[in-house]
Amino acid sequence: MKKKDLLTLFEYSAEDIGGILDLAAKLKDGRGVRELKVLEGKTGVLIFEKPSLRTRVSFETAIHELGGHAVNLPQESVGMGKRESVEDVARNLERIVHLIVARTFAHDTLTRLASSCSIPVINALTDLAHPCQALAFGQTLREARPGERLNIAFVGDGNNVCGSIMVLCAKLGHRFTHAGPKGYEPRADLVNRCKEICAASGGDISLTANPDEAVKTADAVYTDVWASMGQEAETEKRKKDFGAYQVNAELMAKAPGGAIVSHCLPAHRGEEITSEVLDSKACVAYTEAENRLHVQKAVIVHLFS
Amino acid sequence: MKKKDLLTLFEYSAEDIGGILDLAAKLKDGRGVRELKVLEGKTGVLIFEKPSLRTRVSFETAIHELGGHAVNLPQESVGMGKRESVEDVARNLERIVHLIVARTFAHDTLTRLASSCSIPVINALTDLAHPCQALAFGQTLREARPGERLNIAFVGDGNNVCGSIMVLCAKLGHRFTHAGPKGYEPRADLVNRCKEICAASGGDISLTANPDEAVKTADAVYTDVWASMGQEAETEKRKKDFGAYQVNAELMAKAPGGAIVSHCLPAHRGEEITSEVLDSKACVAYTEAENRLHVQKAVIVHLFS
Amino acid sequence: MKKKDLLTLFEYSAEDIGGILDLAAKLKDGRGVRELKVLEGKTGVLIFEKPSLRTRVSFETAIHELGGHAVNLPQESVGMGKRESVEDVARNLERIVHLIVARTFAHDTLTRLASSCSIPVINALTDLAHPCQALAFGQTLREARPGERLNIAFVGDGNNVCGSIMVLCAKLGHRFTHAGPKGYEPRADLVNRCKEICAASGGDISLTANPDEAVKTADAVYTDVWASMGQEAETEKRKKDFGAYQVNAELMAKAPGGAIVSHCLPAHRGEEITSEVLDSKACVAYTEAENRLHVQKAVIVHLFS
Repeated sequence: MKKKDLLTLFEYSAEDIGGILDLAAKLKDGRGVRELKVLEGKTGVLIFEKPSLRTRVSFETAIHELGGHAVNLPQESVGMGKRESVEDVARNLERIVHLIVARTFAHDTLTRLASSCSIPVINALTDLAHPCQALAFGQTLREARPGERLNIAFVGDGNNVCGSIMVLCAKLGHRFTHAGPKGYEPRADLVNRCKEICAASGGDISLTANPDEAVKTADAVYTDVWASMGQEAETEKRKKDFGAYQVNAELMAKAPGGAIVSHCLPAHRGEEITSEVLDSKACVAYTEAENRLHVQKAVIVHLFS
Repeated sequence: MKKKDLLTLFEYSAEDIGGILDLAAKLKDGRGVRELKVLEGKTGVLIFEKPSLRTRVSFETAIHELGGHAVNLPQESVGMGKRESVEDVARNLERIVHLIVARTFAHDTLTRLASSCSIPVINALTDLAHPCQALAFGQTLREARPGERLNIAFVGDGNNVCGSIMVLCAKLGHRFTHAGPKGYEPRADLVNRCKEICAASGGDISLTANPDEAVKTADAVYTDVWASMGQEAETEKRKKDFGAYQVNAELMAKAPGGAIVSHCLPAHRGEEITSEVLDSKACVAYTEAENRLHVQKAVIVHLFS
Repeated sequence: MKKKDLLTLFEYSAEDIGGILDLAAKLKDGRGVRELKVLEGKTGVLIFEKPSLRTRVSFETAIHELGGHAVNLPQESVGMGKRESVEDVARNLERIVHLIVARTFAHDTLTRLASSCSIPVINALTDLAHPCQALAFGQTLREARPGERLNIAFVGDGNNVCGSIMVLCAKLGHRFTHAGPKGYEPRADLVNRCKEICAASGGDISLTANPDEAVKTADAVYTDVWASMGQEAETEKRKKDFGAYQVNAELMAKAPGGAIVSHCLPAHRGEEITSEVLDSKACVAYTEAENRLHVQKAVIVHLFS
């Protein structure tokens, strides 16, 4: 049997995603009780090329709650691609442990890791995709705004998180709109693949430079930092370019009543989102942070069964 | 029910402290046998802004022995106050884990962390207080010098460790004397609060610049490094200022026979304490290091029951 | 009863080594099933002064699979010899945990650690020795080339790994040949001690500058990087000095058919070994990496029983 990974949501069917969200809901409901100990006696390794709070804590906790043991490998210990080739790291780890969770700068590093070993590899954020975050959003959406063909507005940078949420929407048949300045749209190839998926799923993808237009029918508004990890040098330019795309009370007033707001966190309060919005009742970002735990447990169960 | 924390010993009654020390003794006596698995299926997070050997090892071990799982979060991953606000770190962690153990430079960071989340927070050292060390001293004192209204002499810098031992003495009705150079006394507000506590407990607080006077009736002598973590720039000045306050054989000869000596470690041998004293039979510092484990287990049981 | 350590293989008899390899084979065969939970309720501490992938992952996994809990202590937290003396680190850790696994630059640091505490200490690599790697090679050899009085050729730097494999061969009665440039032989005192051991075991030790001569009767060829961790400054000089000692297809063609090749990894592909050889069927380096886990579990069982 071919091993399974979670590299991007493109490789997952709507049924896969639906099954993971179903299981995540059950695991959340019965946390500490209904765990499936699929990692009993097993070890998962975490490799992070970038800092992480939520991802590291939620994965270590997920692995533990599923009966396993997490080994956290700092990048300076692994030296992936420097001290040892990516392929050799994979070929060593597959001999000793049972799961790799990796956060890499380049998505290519992740795919090389996955294709060089026989154990499951989970994407914990790359420059291309953040599927676990998108799944956590999927769970949060189901809880806060259950329904079909929902309108999801992503306001801000068309980055990795934006891309993964776009794929989730395409797979699940939601209507996704990106609102951002010219030059910051999600990658054209991803947009095109998502549009093809929508042809079958009933979803829809649209791009606009006008945030008001994006939110006016939104069931959920999503945003993320303007400069991601590794783009610190562009911070000032991006602040200017994104100035008109802040998710604030004024923008939210243009959304339908009951629209929720989320963010993958950490948030830069006062930049891409105001504290007023982040701390409002409409905000589900902290619930989504919790749901990282539940969906990741569901993903691991999916990969090991 | 309001959640419980351990931020300083001020918030703990003599009964709380006595109960923790009783339980710590039982847990020490039956280590590996009598553990109360209060953390079964639970995860505790360790956040350390400063290096730590004893604290990290003893807390990870404590959490494990109580059935839980410890996630060690390096400061560079959390970026508390930089990458993300202290409050947001707390609001995320409470969603995923069950306990926070934190060592922060500023005590204010700890209290903000604690007041922003619904899970217990334990102080693993701040610039204000080191309650776990004081409790470990309390257990060590009970073992080596059981008795009431004991005389405790702290010789050296009136720092966080000194302050917490002063509070412990006040709560338990011991007589605490600080001996140190002018300008290095424990903070006046802490001294005043401890004196008020003594009015009820029967304890006593006094300050002197004369180390001989402090030790001449001492049942226990305590010291700590002259320059704490973060004060390295003042090292030379402090060496001069504290020159007359070394805990050496000469000073110990002025204490009553049977007086014990302790230190929170790491010690700077030849500075605040000589190897002769640290390696003598009177020294209980290594036992106190072990007792960190037992009291911290007792604190966790206290917080979770 | 005197506590046991694993500092070098000199202190281990052929019977000890044989017993460990027997047990390692059983543990490998029944991984996840036949574990002896000798570390139930116990904690092992890992102290690494140098980076590590295989060693850290395999030890954490080993400790976990034997029922224990691993605490990974980064060097900056311990500050062994800087923040606190080596002896004091040992005297603290023995009070809280049950096992120390240490990778230190100086072997002397390891022996001081071991002689200052009452708990077992395992050498996870020092400038003198790498006994766990040699044991993993021993297990790999038994699997791939079972037999007595085998010919083992180590081609390259007479470093710590080379030395430990030489001791293993001496103890087990194999014939060990080192081939390397003048000035890079294994330490003369180690060679002499190994020759004495061979007098009883039937093994043999020889040194040559001619790699062809070393491999022409070899059942197994071993190599390691030319510049070990900490010798980065000598990299260029060493590349020149070792130019004639690359383990490549040409050299392997001079070995008998069926000869195996190994390496302790990470490998510098194209330097001490070519990718052609490392990725060939004759190469057992990745199996040896896996065997690190099994022999280390066997070592821990040995130390705790």
